[in-house]
This record gives sequence, C-alpha cells and structure tokens, in this order.
Amino acid sequence: MSQSKCEPIRAIRWRGDYLELLDQRKLPGEEIYLRLDRVSAVGDAIRDMVVRGAPAIGITAAYGVVLAVRARHRENPTTWRDDVRVDFERLAKARPTAVNLSWALQRMADAMARTTDEEPVAGLLDEARAIHEQDVTANRRMGVLGSRLLTCSGAVLTHCNTGSLATGGFGTALGVVREGFSRGRITQVYADETRPWLQGSRLTAWELARDGIPVTLLADGAAAWLMRQGEVRWVIVGADRIAANGDTANKIGTYGLAVLARQHAVGFMVVAPTSTIDLSIIQGEQIAIEERDPSEILRLGDRAIAPERGVGGWNPAFDVTPAELIDAIVTENGVVENPDDRKIAALCDGD
Amino acid sequence: MSQSKCEPIRAIRWRGDYLELLDQRKLPGEEIYLRLDRVSAVGDAIRDMVVRGAPAIGITAAYGVVLAVRARHRENPTTWRDDVRVDFERLAKARPTAVNLSWALQRMADAMARTTDEEPVAGLLDEARAIHEQDVTANRRMGVLGSRLLTCSGAVLTHCNTGSLATGGFGTALGVVREGFSRGRITQVYADETRPWLQGSRLTAWELARDGIPVTLLADGAAAWLMRQGEVRWVIVGADRIAANGDTANKIGTYGLAVLARQHAVGFMVVAPTSTIDLSIIQGEQIAIEERDPSEILRLGDRAIAPERGVGGWNPAFDVTPAELIDAIVTENGVVENPDDRKIAALCDGD
Repeated sequence: MSQSKCEPIRAIRWRGDYLELLDQRKLPGEEIYLRLDRVSAVGDAIRDMVVRGAPAIGITAAYGVVLAVRARHRENPTTWRDDVRVDFERLAKARPTAVNLSWALQRMADAMARTTDEEPVAGLLDEARAIHEQDVTANRRMGVLGSRLLTCSGAVLTHCNTGSLATGGFGTALGVVREGFSRGRITQVYADETRPWLQGSRLTAWELARDGIPVTLLADGAAAWLMRQGEVRWVIVGADRIAANGDTANKIGTYGLAVLARQHAVGFMVVAPTSTIDLSIIQGEQIAIEERDPSEILRLGDRAIAPERGVGGWNPAFDVTPAELIDAIVTENGVVENPDDRKIAALCDGD
Repeated sequence: MSQSKCEPIRAIRWRGDYLELLDQRKLPGEEIYLRLDRVSAVGDAIRDMVVRGAPAIGITAAYGVVLAVRARHRENPTTWRDDVRVDFERLAKARPTAVNLSWALQRMADAMARTTDEEPVAGLLDEARAIHEQDVTANRRMGVLGSRLLTCSGAVLTHCNTGSLATGGFGTALGVVREGFSRGRITQVYADETRPWLQGSRLTAWELARDGIPVTLLADGAAAWLMRQGEVRWVIVGADRIAANGDTANKIGTYGLAVLARQHAVGFMVVAPTSTIDLSIIQGEQIAIEERDPSEILRLGDRAIAPERGVGGWNPAFDVTPAELIDAIVTENGVVENPDDRKIAALCDGD
C-alpha cells in the first residue's frame, strides 16, 4: 500500500445528484472542482481535457450516462431509451483513442438494458460507481503485480500522468511506482515533462510530491541521455488502447521511449486494466490516433512560444508501441511478458 | 544560395565602438538589440544566453576581447597584456561545452601577440571581424557540401537552432537546410521545439518562416513517431564540440534522435565548422557537459509549470552522440562519412 501523507486524490466525485471533476488544466497552480449537471458538459470536459487518462475518461463517461438518463427520463419517461442514444454517441466521440471510453459506455448500455422504465437512474448510478470502484481495486492489484517485476532496486522513468488523476484513484503505471516505492524497490522517479500538455510536470510531479516520493523532472528530449547514464532500470507507462497482439497506443513520446529502452537494456513495462485491451483491433496500425490542435504546440497556455505566422504544428496525441518492444503488460488479471496475440487472448479468456 | 525574402539576420553586429547582440531570449515576440560596451557584459550575455550557438558564442567572445583590450589599454598602456588575462579567463568560463569559445579566444590571443603596445585595438578588431566573416563563408560552404548528401528529395528533421542566430550568419545545419531547400532537395522541414529553451519554436521556426521555408514544429517526444511515418530522410543537427574520434556533443535531445534515426534507417548528419573539432578530446566521455539550473525545466519564462516544492529537475544542456551513430560530419573543409579518429585527423591535417 502506498504510504500517502495526504488524503488520496479523488479527481472524479459523484456528489449525490451531480458530478464533480478536478479541473486538470489548472493544476498544479489551482485545485478547482467543476460541477457538472448535464451530459453535454461531461462530453465537453472529456474533449477539453478537464479530465484525461484512459481509465478516468471511462469512469467520467459512465457518470455522464447517469446524468443523460436522468434528464431524458424526466423529459419523456416513454421514449427516453431512444432519446438517450444521441448522448451515448456524443460521449463516445469526445476522444477517439482511449478504448476505456467505449468500454465504459458499453457497460452502461448493458446496465440500461436491465433497468426498469419507472426508475432507471439508481441502477445506472450503481453501475457507474461499480466501474469506478473496480478501477481502484484493479489499480491496487496492478501495483502489486507490477512492483514484483522490479527485482533490482533503482530508478524508474515514467511518461505522462497515469496516477490518481488519470484513473479512479491510485494509478496504473503510477500505481506500480507508488507500490514499488513503498516496497523499497524504487529509489527515484524520473518523470518526462511530457509536452505539449505537460502532464508530467503539472500532474505526475504534483501527485508524487504530495506523496513524498522523490521525483525529478526532465525534458522529454533528455530521456535518451538519462538512460545512457545507467541509473534507470525500468520505463513504466500506461496505455490508452492495447491491440489483440499487444501493440499499445499511449501518450505521444511512449514509442520513442520504448525504442530507447530496448537500445539501453532498460525494461519497458505497460500498466493498464483489461478494459484497455481492444480485441477487435488486430494490430496497432488499426488504432485511430487523435491529432489535436497545433496551437497546443505553438502556444503554452495564453502565451505564444512560436511565431504567429508561417509556422505549422504537428500534434498527434498518441503513438503506438509495437508489442516486440514491450517487456511486460501488467493488468489486474495478470502479467503478460513479451506479449503476443496468443498470450493476450489467454489473459482475456481468464486462462 | 538561399532565397531569403528578407535581409539576412545579423544577430551579432560591431557598431564602430561597441557590440550589439540580438537578445535571443526575447524572440520571437520582440526583436531587441542590446548594446555592450564592456567585456563583463559580453561574458554575462554568453552565460545568460542572450547569444547562443557554438559559432556565435565564439564570434561574440572575439569581439569581447576587443572591448577588454580597449579598456585595459586605456587604463594602463604598460601592463594591459597582463591585466587582460582575467578577461580571457572569464570569457572562457562563460559556457563550458562549446569549444568554439576557447578556439576563438586562442585566435584572439595569437593576434594579441602580434599587436604593438601603441595601438593594439585595430589589429584585434580586424581579427574578430575575420573570425566572423570566415564563419559565414564556412557556413555557405557547408551548405553546399551538406546539401549534396540529400540525394532524394524529402523532409528533414532538425533540432535546436543552428541558423543565422547561432552563427555568424546563414547557419550550420540550418545552412544545409537553406541550401537544400533552394536546390529543391528539401520539401518540408520538421523542427523539434527543443525544450527547455524552445530554440526550435522560438528561433528556428522564426528564421525559416522569415525565409519562406515550410516549417512544422513538433514536441520533442513526437520525433520517433514522425520517423516511423517514413517521410523524414535526414536528421540534420549542429555541434558544440566534436572529439577526435567523431563523438559529438550537441543540444540535449540530439543523442536520442541519433539512436532513433539509426533505428528507422534515417540519415544522421552533423554540420559544424572545423573550429568545433577538439583534437585534445579523444572521445566523447571526456567532454564536460554543462548542467543548467533546474528552474529552466520547472518554469517557462515567468510561469511555474511544476509544483513549487518537492520536485527536482535534471537539466543537462547537451548530450554526446557516439560517432558510430553519425552518417556524416559536414565541415567547411569537407565531409567525413562514418567518422572515426583516422578520418577526423585527415580532415584536420587538410589531407
């Protein structure tokens, strides 16, 4: 268990009859919770990255369905099941790459099929809460399983944010980091700042500093030189979608880290719940990669950091790491070393 | 020749009796020239990165010696040769990694040995101007030689800024880019934004947009994924110090690009004048790497981008790329393909 000095961070909170999200765009400067009463606001919050991180997006969407059903049912208790479809579709399109979003919506659709027309909301809220709680449980389990792979004590490198902010709580890759630190297997965490959105600087550093875990930020371009120094034993990252063969979409920069890790004999670990595995995708090339607005590269917040005219920006939000560069995929149902389609299928079958 | 739409950029200007430097910390937002009358201000400007780029630092230091000798000679026309030593030492220490700085100071010391005690300044100013002009000539020559290596038309990726701002004018790697574009061998330039100092966004994009050369910025972490797309034919970078065996110190992030380029069968070209070669350094491990203040990682300008407390930053300004990852080193005296100590020695002997 993590030895947190503070209350665990809860970035997603159901408050009786509305949803509260910690606005991750404002961290670490301000800790502001936004109140969301309507599903349209939930879709906007996912698209605009008030909340981000594949598992957190799924959980948020599940609560979004609760708000949608409540409103549609109030409007028309006869046609609400048809009416709510458009809300499902809008939520599904809020961000394209993380499969946890559509996975959570499917669970909510299944739960909806089981509800009555008289009082559908309570059952759906139970399901959303179950998705949320199961994610935290899965995180804890992954923390234990992943930390067992850290056989030598040493430093690790992580990318983006995969902690409490990106999940229901605790974290995927950062869950392994928390557990590994509390077991004395991690001495130092290096965190890529993770341009353009600076999830490493703003979110990962904030979470780890809050827990008293030693964290050192570096420019993304410095990761190769850091590995060359020989101190880093593992690169530990999350995932947004894992194909049936183990190819893994994750935050832009992950693929380069995997190439560099292999080159420097550093282990490369992906930590993600099984809800991140998409068996309908045979290999990574089929994963849709979200391209975000070039302004995220050309500006930082409200400040222009590049000339205003005559300059383009290429801003893919994710990249795909081929399975052959991944030493281990850690899920709540077990660890797959040197992943391939046969091993991933066995994991998903519960073998 | 480059088809510049504008007047060439001159970041370093001798104005009769003082030195003017374009303040590169303010670009691209403001184009402000600082007036420097004293050598101490020149040392500060190099340390604080008003001017940066290995050749530009050397040229600036040469003019700094002119200011130093003028002041010391006025103070005491008998002891000035001894008095000025402290100024040489301070200039030499302003930044540790670029060898062009000590190379230029050595040329100025040699010129000083040839001057009279009556009127030493004119001869030293001639030498500083010669260093400056020879750098521009060398850049043009490297542009021609390097662009001949671009046998297939396509996109290139560059890192940091190696253009007019980093040199006497035109550029090293960016000189090859300018020449390659004007010859139709480069269709598109991708520029790493180059955290933490954003030389790519602020300086390279500004220079290329000014010349009408198509430039697209990307986060440093996206370079691997860009190479994976197959469009980039060459990575073209500058150098701050080249060891006798071809190992090359350059802006942090260069080493990772070299590893990734080799992995993706992309060419890797280093462009630098022979003044960047340090035969006293046998191999890269001996090159002193400047570590700059962690605040460059934790802040962006006046804005904190990481938590204020409990978070460290690792901020090496340079890394070292082993010679075996370099396909070609382009100098004004010729191209060394697959560099090693024998070929570098032959180049420096003028063979």
